[in-house]
Amino acid sequence: MKSGIVADRAELASRRDNIRKEMSKNGFDAILVSSNVNLFYTCGRIVNGFLYMPADGDAILFVKRPDNVQGSDVEHIRKPEDIAGRLAGRGCRMPERLLLEAGAMPHTEYCRLANVFPSAECADGTELLRRVRAVKTPFEQQLLKRTGAVNSEIYRMIPALYRKGMTDLDLSAAIEYEERKRGDLGIFRCFGHKMEIFKGSLLAGENASAPSPYDFALGGRGLGEALPVGLSGETIKEGTTVMVDMAGNFFGYMGDMTRVFSVGRIAQKICDAHQVCLEIQDKVVSLAKPGAVCEELYDAALSIAVRHGLEEHFMGYYQHAGFVGHGVGIEINEYPVIAPRMKTELAVGMAFALEPKMVFPETGAVGIENTWIVTEHGLECTSDCPEHIIKID
Amino acid sequence: MKSGIVADRAELASRRDNIRKEMSKNGFDAILVSSNVNLFYTCGRIVNGFLYMPADGDAILFVKRPDNVQGSDVEHIRKPEDIAGRLAGRGCRMPERLLLEAGAMPHTEYCRLANVFPSAECADGTELLRRVRAVKTPFEQQLLKRTGAVNSEIYRMIPALYRKGMTDLDLSAAIEYEERKRGDLGIFRCFGHKMEIFKGSLLAGENASAPSPYDFALGGRGLGEALPVGLSGETIKEGTTVMVDMAGNFFGYMGDMTRVFSVGRIAQKICDAHQVCLEIQDKVVSLAKPGAVCEELYDAALSIAVRHGLEEHFMGYYQHAGFVGHGVGIEINEYPVIAPRMKTELAVGMAFALEPKMVFPETGAVGIENTWIVTEHGLECTSDCPEHIIKID
Repeated sequence: MKSGIVADRAELASRRDNIRKEMSKNGFDAILVSSNVNLFYTCGRIVNGFLYMPADGDAILFVKRPDNVQGSDVEHIRKPEDIAGRLAGRGCRMPERLLLEAGAMPHTEYCRLANVFPSAECADGTELLRRVRAVKTPFEQQLLKRTGAVNSEIYRMIPALYRKGMTDLDLSAAIEYEERKRGDLGIFRCFGHKMEIFKGSLLAGENASAPSPYDFALGGRGLGEALPVGLSGETIKEGTTVMVDMAGNFFGYMGDMTRVFSVGRIAQKICDAHQVCLEIQDKVVSLAKPGAVCEELYDAALSIAVRHGLEEHFMGYYQHAGFVGHGVGIEINEYPVIAPRMKTELAVGMAFALEPKMVFPETGAVGIENTWIVTEHGLECTSDCPEHIIKID
Repeated sequence: MKSGIVADRAELASRRDNIRKEMSKNGFDAILVSSNVNLFYTCGRIVNGFLYMPADGDAILFVKRPDNVQGSDVEHIRKPEDIAGRLAGRGCRMPERLLLEAGAMPHTEYCRLANVFPSAECADGTELLRRVRAVKTPFEQQLLKRTGAVNSEIYRMIPALYRKGMTDLDLSAAIEYEERKRGDLGIFRCFGHKMEIFKGSLLAGENASAPSPYDFALGGRGLGEALPVGLSGETIKEGTTVMVDMAGNFFGYMGDMTRVFSVGRIAQKICDAHQVCLEIQDKVVSLAKPGAVCEELYDAALSIAVRHGLEEHFMGYYQHAGFVGHGVGIEINEYPVIAPRMKTELAVGMAFALEPKMVFPETGAVGIENTWIVTEHGLECTSDCPEHIIKID
């Protein structure tokens, strides 16, 4: 299956307009978009180069590679220092207040780009772009739903992929294979230079409680010190749960989703904790109308865990995640974040994964995760797959 | 298979000593290691945190996450601003000339860290660390050889994985599945924030000549605009070549390797071009003793292509790569780089992939790639797999 779904000119124009509005509101007269993620968002394609976008003029795409990009808005350059001359050649005045992606490029690269615009006051555009990208266009919502549909199809296959005696790696590899054959791009885009993981995680038994250095909802020891997160390579044991939290990246849009499977008998209190996670999901979904405040959604989630006496298991056991939901789109960790102190109000078009989870050191993790889109009337789910603990033995 | 192979204290001490020597030589009194790659290199593990290493004192590992890291050299912090107080608490004087990983962390993060050391003159330690890492320790060489052995095992299976009518995606997914079952970490570490790819590339037929934005040896259209590199999802056709250039990441050390397969009849001139690539490999290997200069190796490679009238096919057709080899280790694009104007001299312990390739728009790509280690007597190959074009129909 071909993953290429191309954003047309009107789609790109609408995204760029949303960025321009935010720029004008904040008194910036231009932005230089440079990261792959934001070039894909603003140009519908990735180049080695830069999109220069004035708040009140036509954008210009400066391209180092590939050689074959064409268009009246395209300038081929050899190095960023060529940009100033080309702008002058097109009669563009140099910006006075310029946004650079300071949060998404190395310091060395930032200094080099800032030097291209010596008369400009440079500021960080990372947050502005993340805020705009938090609200998905109808086109993006369609892609999130398509990704959700493929993910759901694959999750429904998991019981058939399991064989007694498998390691967590064997099972994950079998799921990954199904994803890939359906056009999963394989890469897992995360915001933040310290974040790395391969396609999410499959956490079986006590490995679910192993703390990791990464700021994902749960940890896992990983296969070794080179990537200490997620599956650990051990055989899946009787009397444990297997939490599959893998986000396929189809069409450039990720969809985050978790389901729990059980092997052998699981204690009643752990099945009950899973029900509490479903209760949390229901509660947050009922509250999550446009205008709802993220920290209040988090508080509602936490208070249900506390009421059931499950606070120490909520979002980790030895180490706890400080959120219960996160935006999803081109990257796995977009805005909004459903966490304490987050004053963001939900808006129509936002998309986020909601993942109430509980961890029990000996048995494993339980809980649920779906990716939701905020509509006028409340949340719409992008996935369709049973939510109870599914026995796979 | 468990990918975890742990570097012991002596190994880490030797790596740190090599960094300290370079720091002292260049007049720096401390370095703050912050990237996952360089924490893995210097600490044998990845944390969300920082290794503070004075040129003439004991290193301290400052850890935000995970919670369970222990040791007399470990300080748990909540934020980087805690570092200054902890250094004072341990009686360490503040550095005067400090190296930060300016080339491997966002500008915003760099500014925050530099502010932790207001009296220090900060400089970029990225290149210094890359230079040290270019020379692999005997332990690292062993890991490169183990990765090479697993890669070779998988490459030998490729003819059996191919089925007539497969797409390039089908075949790649089948190879990836074999890699993953053997413990491939799945992530593909590249230096540079613009570089992204999933496990290398499989380039069939004319897709091999499609230019990409990325600075890899060859391109490929990719599955869509979200990742415009590598396989394109099309059916593998009769009369074309399939170039498999996939670098398994086992044990945290990558091994780069390319083999070419043919489906149906291939024109003689293309088989001849493959032989020229093997000739280039032989020539470069014969020259690549310790002390050999990288640009001279590149020139030797290019001159053979030119002598055979194949310059326009060498390292790309519509777009050409500017190198014929690159260091390999924790990242796929380490030092040394075998390219024009590269004055680096080979040293014992360096490891690099040598990949002379030729691209023919209608048929595909041919050529060879192996990962080599520089020894006193010349190069040692880390892979073991036939090098001719292998018929798979």
